[in-house]
Amino acid sequence: MPNVLICPNAFKSSLSAEAVANAIAAGLQQSALDCTCTTLAIADGGDGTLNVVAGYLGLELRTLEVNGPLGKHVQAAYGVKGDMALIELAEASGLHLLNENELDPWAATTLGTGQLIADALDRGARKIYLTVGGSATVDGALGILDALGVVFHHEFGSIQQPVPSDFGRIQHIDLRQAEDLLEGVELFVLTDVTNPLVGAQGAAAVFGPQKGAKSEDIEVLDAGLQHLADLVARTKGVAVHELEGAGAAGGVAGILHGLLGARLLNGAEQVLEWSGFKNELEKAAIVITAEGHMDEQTAYGKGPGKVAQLAKAAGKMVIGLAGGVSRELTELAGFDAVFPVVHAPVSHFEAYAATAENLTRTARQIGNLLAK
Amino acid sequence: MPNVLICPNAFKSSLSAEAVANAIAAGLQQSALDCTCTTLAIADGGDGTLNVVAGYLGLELRTLEVNGPLGKHVQAAYGVKGDMALIELAEASGLHLLNENELDPWAATTLGTGQLIADALDRGARKIYLTVGGSATVDGALGILDALGVVFHHEFGSIQQPVPSDFGRIQHIDLRQAEDLLEGVELFVLTDVTNPLVGAQGAAAVFGPQKGAKSEDIEVLDAGLQHLADLVARTKGVAVHELEGAGAAGGVAGILHGLLGARLLNGAEQVLEWSGFKNELEKAAIVITAEGHMDEQTAYGKGPGKVAQLAKAAGKMVIGLAGGVSRELTELAGFDAVFPVVHAPVSHFEAYAATAENLTRTARQIGNLLAK
Repeated sequence: MPNVLICPNAFKSSLSAEAVANAIAAGLQQSALDCTCTTLAIADGGDGTLNVVAGYLGLELRTLEVNGPLGKHVQAAYGVKGDMALIELAEASGLHLLNENELDPWAATTLGTGQLIADALDRGARKIYLTVGGSATVDGALGILDALGVVFHHEFGSIQQPVPSDFGRIQHIDLRQAEDLLEGVELFVLTDVTNPLVGAQGAAAVFGPQKGAKSEDIEVLDAGLQHLADLVARTKGVAVHELEGAGAAGGVAGILHGLLGARLLNGAEQVLEWSGFKNELEKAAIVITAEGHMDEQTAYGKGPGKVAQLAKAAGKMVIGLAGGVSRELTELAGFDAVFPVVHAPVSHFEAYAATAENLTRTARQIGNLLAK
Repeated sequence: MPNVLICPNAFKSSLSAEAVANAIAAGLQQSALDCTCTTLAIADGGDGTLNVVAGYLGLELRTLEVNGPLGKHVQAAYGVKGDMALIELAEASGLHLLNENELDPWAATTLGTGQLIADALDRGARKIYLTVGGSATVDGALGILDALGVVFHHEFGSIQQPVPSDFGRIQHIDLRQAEDLLEGVELFVLTDVTNPLVGAQGAAAVFGPQKGAKSEDIEVLDAGLQHLADLVARTKGVAVHELEGAGAAGGVAGILHGLLGARLLNGAEQVLEWSGFKNELEKAAIVITAEGHMDEQTAYGKGPGKVAQLAKAAGKMVIGLAGGVSRELTELAGFDAVFPVVHAPVSHFEAYAATAENLTRTARQIGNLLAK
């Protein structure tokens, strides 16, 4: 009787990772396949990571009012246990907090996320994990750094509440107050992308558009991040321009690494470690992972791709389920089979409403095939 | 090395049965499954049957100009070989010949189909197979009968070119001329539905709406068919009101059976017989069938349902592929697994354009699973 390990991401806009896992398990259990199912919700540093990890580590959630991406206050939660805190950047600085017509890459900042970090430090946290997917910002961590006491100077004085439109006039970075605050603190950034800070694959060029950057903005934002990285190199002797993952969350990952010594971790790998995935993988014959949309990018860095990579290396059968796949997708590295679960040509709205039953139906068909 | 028998229907609006079969075979051959593929296009009496059967039997196609459903002339083909002729009702009297705003269940007739039959008889055909799916008509075969010399009398004389609006005033049916013409001729009707002629599951109630009948029309059309069936019973002593399949093509099947002794055959079964399906089934371990849309009705009468029924009875693994499935579909009798192939939530237009590659991708995933 094979053990099936079911470890999906959440489906954005429709189902939590737990609900996805349960829908798949239900289908297998209705099928002709005689199997046991183990479900593990996964996440990769993108939004929803806090909830998934809080479950695994027993984090206590603390909610407070902080600045949203454009200053308007929002309620934002972070998780804490002992001297460890897990902060999800999207909670205070996420894209989901803005309407499409509010997007403003020149003004949006990570200040609220910095306020969460400051609160955690104030309450004794000494290990800070920051997950950085789903941000509304291209601010190179200006907001976070501001909240932690970093002072940015222009020619004639300090800049109050710096935002990306200030990039060009920053001439000097004063870290003294922040370094005192972070004495003895370990800072980790869980990234969900591998993009560098600047250039054609950088934070502005690749992720700017979804945050409201028009083509004429991208070049200027990229130059601003380049200038900031130059200052980081001058201040701390660390070159972050080309660092893998530095471009996550509009440069937050790279700049926090350069200025504050934050360690960049692969979000998917870290969440899998917290979830006990490796132990469960050993016991499984078949691994099923899933996310809302799969395309060639799924093989790189994100949760289901990482699951497939580890499972395939361990010799398991790997099956991917997705709400939809890109039309071009024929094969996906690490996967034996990938099935879109949408039942018919329907609108996204109809597909979202049917996601759970579509997952169940598809898993049931797969179970029937594997039973033979 | 398993032999996979691939026998799909055509996908209306996108791919011929042959193209569907080839797309599925391509996917299996790209997969990890070491198998041989045999493809058999199938049909169930619905439109497209002529092309499929012509291929199996080596029919010669003969095209002539006849009346379309509303009188306007159309080019229509039928197949002939020796003393056998295969006539597809949809060629001259099909729904696809009219725009939605032209539909007129009171005026549309099967006269053109009758003209094709008359031509075949004139050229020596003695076995006439009539496939009746996809009709635009609810005329109880009035047009066909008119073309074969049947005379319908009202109180004061004969009715010229009778149509459904004449149902109520028919008082007597004169078969003499038609019976002379059909002396020694065997007439077979290949039906694709099992509906009776009249009542809640009858030709008017179930298929009237797609032919333009509004709710107020249905009751009157149904009463007209009932009246015609009463006349058939009085004329020939044959009761066709409740006969299974009599409601096919707006009553063509039932009335031709009652008046002219036509034998009703299950279209799917007959096409499978012509295709050599049983012989191929014996050699196969896995059977894959497909059609544009699958729902609970797929299990009854239509081609893929019949394939599944026979294959399951023979102990084969049966897999169904469809462009889409109904949201409610969880299990389908006779099938081990059914997969919709649409790649994502998209419009019908986009789905049609991607059908071949979606079939190939899905078959490839299935092959990979079965290879394990």
